[in-house]
Amino acid sequence: MASGLPRNPRVFDTADELIESGLADVVCICTPPADHEHIAVAALARGIHVICEKPLAHTLESGRRVLEAAERSSALLMPGFRHRFLPAIRRIRELVVAGAIGEIVYLNNVFAGPASFLKDRWFGKRAIAGGGALMDTTSHSVDLFRFLCGEIGGQRGFTHTSLPGIDVEDTGILIVKSEQGAVGAFTASWIAGTGSAVIDIMGTKGRIFFDYDRDTEIRVLPAEGGEPQIIAVKSSLGFVEEMAHFFRAIRGEEPLGCTARDGLRALEIIQNVYTA
Amino acid sequence: MASGLPRNPRVFDTADELIESGLADVVCICTPPADHEHIAVAALARGIHVICEKPLAHTLESGRRVLEAAERSSALLMPGFRHRFLPAIRRIRELVVAGAIGEIVYLNNVFAGPASFLKDRWFGKRAIAGGGALMDTTSHSVDLFRFLCGEIGGQRGFTHTSLPGIDVEDTGILIVKSEQGAVGAFTASWIAGTGSAVIDIMGTKGRIFFDYDRDTEIRVLPAEGGEPQIIAVKSSLGFVEEMAHFFRAIRGEEPLGCTARDGLRALEIIQNVYTA
Repeated sequence: MASGLPRNPRVFDTADELIESGLADVVCICTPPADHEHIAVAALARGIHVICEKPLAHTLESGRRVLEAAERSSALLMPGFRHRFLPAIRRIRELVVAGAIGEIVYLNNVFAGPASFLKDRWFGKRAIAGGGALMDTTSHSVDLFRFLCGEIGGQRGFTHTSLPGIDVEDTGILIVKSEQGAVGAFTASWIAGTGSAVIDIMGTKGRIFFDYDRDTEIRVLPAEGGEPQIIAVKSSLGFVEEMAHFFRAIRGEEPLGCTARDGLRALEIIQNVYTA
Repeated sequence: MASGLPRNPRVFDTADELIESGLADVVCICTPPADHEHIAVAALARGIHVICEKPLAHTLESGRRVLEAAERSSALLMPGFRHRFLPAIRRIRELVVAGAIGEIVYLNNVFAGPASFLKDRWFGKRAIAGGGALMDTTSHSVDLFRFLCGEIGGQRGFTHTSLPGIDVEDTGILIVKSEQGAVGAFTASWIAGTGSAVIDIMGTKGRIFFDYDRDTEIRVLPAEGGEPQIIAVKSSLGFVEEMAHFFRAIRGEEPLGCTARDGLRALEIIQNVYTA
């Protein structure tokens, strides 16, 4: 894709100037969440396609306005849930859909690691970020659960803050239940001293385990015991696959793989923990 | 200990006859939970020491009456939370208390595996068992969290039942928050096709991981990265250590390591999930 970039890109002082220039067919919004709505609404109103980093917005109200703008627009908006586009996650979904582990019983997911450097940045400010560790990484967990296990029918959580100088949680646990009955537990923390990023899915007939630190393999454990089956997958951060998919969707070659409604749903579930 | 057993043990038709015989100094209650209260109260009233299998009772009211009987008695009652007595758990607690992983951020614990055979037994009947997978294995999780991370200040959970012919949950997720702020997520299932029994504790300065299927080692991961430190421990189911401790406590050689109040607290936390 880099080969398609202009050698001397134009630089704009503001997002509005970029959008008004008429030069952009697609914008990728990577600003802090509180700025998502303004930029997304402006782009969509001009028929410019939008990839918007997660979370969709900093508040539920703002997220709803982004969804409305996307539904009014002829352009596409896709929330940047890159994990959906990881080769490993795609493969795990194929396995789940094919019934490789039977009915899903639970999905446990941890995204944790040292991130105390966030405390002096917008990540730690509720007015800008809309939340803390849950908004940051559990947004991904919620989307992964919906992608792999189906729609969420209820959620409950706990948050905790121990870092000084932030007004959001640095640690949180969220549990969910799918409409089909699978349960999920997601742990997120910015203050864990060691990193951990794993997905553990247990079904009635087996188990799938994925460690982001060993992202070239998926481990499938059969119910009858024995050695795990190792499935090789391509290492990726998902961004390239995400962009490539979005361009195919824009060209009408495939349906949009992640919609503004998916973005709003993840936001709703996280925000419900804060207000419960 | 087996060498201390009589060669021709007396057999009684009922627990009452055993208790009334005057022959027992200690009783170990391994009946279904609905029978715990009757036997424990009768034994304690006669000054007979009691080890009572977990959960303490099938209902909170029954558990409270067991606690009252224990507090009135000159004899000791200890709930059978054998995990507290596992060499690995003892070692993990020493590490935590010594600050080996800093402040505890979270504890994730899974006890899951195929147990559909339970469906035609008392395990699946609420009137006898008082609950399902949460009463069965999450009782242990709650006690482990309290033993390792401190008192629980709040809990939330989800349950799900998919096995036919049982009126309790076969899958549950419970999250807790300690009074110090550590969070915990416990997953229990009888319908998971593969077994999983792990404790993952992350602190601000490192991580401790224990897999019950590899119970001769504890893995300690330092915050600065690098290879995990492997600490060798003795494989055990904890029952022998538990009994040996109870006898030392009876002889006044050490304080009771797990009390009726611990048993009631675990019961309260589990039962609160059912009634929430």
